[in-house]
Amino acid sequence: MVSKGQIKLITSLQQKKYRDKTGLFVAEGPKVINEFLTAGLRLHSLFSTEKTMSPSKDHFQVTETELQKLSFLKTANTSLAVFEIPEQKTVKNEGLIVALDAVRDPGNLGTIIRLCDWFGVTQLVCSKDTADCYNPKVVQATMGSIARVQVGYVSLSEFLRDTSLPVYGACMQGNNVYSKELPKEAVVVMGNEANGISEEVLALIHERITIPQFGELHDTESLNVATATAILLSEFRRFTET
Amino acid sequence: MVSKGQIKLITSLQQKKYRDKTGLFVAEGPKVINEFLTAGLRLHSLFSTEKTMSPSKDHFQVTETELQKLSFLKTANTSLAVFEIPEQKTVKNEGLIVALDAVRDPGNLGTIIRLCDWFGVTQLVCSKDTADCYNPKVVQATMGSIARVQVGYVSLSEFLRDTSLPVYGACMQGNNVYSKELPKEAVVVMGNEANGISEEVLALIHERITIPQFGELHDTESLNVATATAILLSEFRRFTET
Repeated sequence: MVSKGQIKLITSLQQKKYRDKTGLFVAEGPKVINEFLTAGLRLHSLFSTEKTMSPSKDHFQVTETELQKLSFLKTANTSLAVFEIPEQKTVKNEGLIVALDAVRDPGNLGTIIRLCDWFGVTQLVCSKDTADCYNPKVVQATMGSIARVQVGYVSLSEFLRDTSLPVYGACMQGNNVYSKELPKEAVVVMGNEANGISEEVLALIHERITIPQFGELHDTESLNVATATAILLSEFRRFTET
Repeated sequence: MVSKGQIKLITSLQQKKYRDKTGLFVAEGPKVINEFLTAGLRLHSLFSTEKTMSPSKDHFQVTETELQKLSFLKTANTSLAVFEIPEQKTVKNEGLIVALDAVRDPGNLGTIIRLCDWFGVTQLVCSKDTADCYNPKVVQATMGSIARVQVGYVSLSEFLRDTSLPVYGACMQGNNVYSKELPKEAVVVMGNEANGISEEVLALIHERITIPQFGELHDTESLNVATATAILLSEFRRFTET
């Protein structure tokens, strides 16, 4: 059984305002839920259609119809969990760090988190106007890999001013990334979908890098921010590898 | 004014069946439309809210409400055009060619076409069960760059059997792409979102290549096909560059 209060709580968690207020977020499907459990996040409540699950205080067996009422997905999975948002850890000045300046699209943020996980980037620093990583669309787009990447929301200018690492910024006009020897430890800044990196942040970048365009040059759209992140992370990592 | 017949025709072009039957497809917004006009595609009809446009036989000035009725977008742009689907050209065995084996998601196909355009790949070969590149979602996702990339639907097995170029395939288990010297001219095969490259196609690949995973290894999802294409095209092109 699902109570009205539970439906109200879970529905409210689609909005950042209520995630902030309650300190809770929603994850759906056994794969994603298991990633968070493995990462040690605290479970608030779990709703599942599976009969094998032993019901307890925080575990509720529900019908498919009930789960669909709770779910944010078009077609609900077999389970939905509410987790406590973990406390934000202090960013350590080590390793390869990705920094996002006002990346707004939840799909892009989700893809970037998944990329960080693939390339062993464990720290993602976001400006406060970047999309919220506990937005249900982001959580699902990461396929659970968000459980392995520390995401911190900070004043990006302060963070970049204080870091001891070299700061690279992805720009349309910069040094060709293929002709650079890249360090193992660095901050890579990626900008907003429409406007790129803001003036304020740009002033704190040590080196602007560019993915060159090939073939007949024409006035094309820049690469999508998630695609550009994929290529740049690959470039930074290939030097570790080779 | 928009006639009932025009609404019926345009609405029908959301479906592949009617695009095949009529040989027509829809593009929306001045930027995308201009790319097709520049590429020399034949315009069937144009609907625009702009007053500056001189109405003619195939040019219709419409109200915003009328355009919204025709549009496939949530919020219509200022113009919508119907173009004739160009005749499919024979694939030439030269340069860098991307080949898709049953890539089903229109968003992924759109991103891949945009990537081809960025990296100067002018030929994209698709298995017949790959998403249709004249699907309105694909056309819009490419931001018009589809006008510069030749997309051919072929029997992928026949094409790969006959090509004189070396054939690389993106696989989970293959040679580390960073440790390879890659040729300027090649076919790069990318597989289906869920199942990767099919057995039949896999048998025709000369070398399997892999983007290595970094950090603590875990049972993560593979990279998204569009993301993997971005990284591989970047790898092939960096050798041209450096």
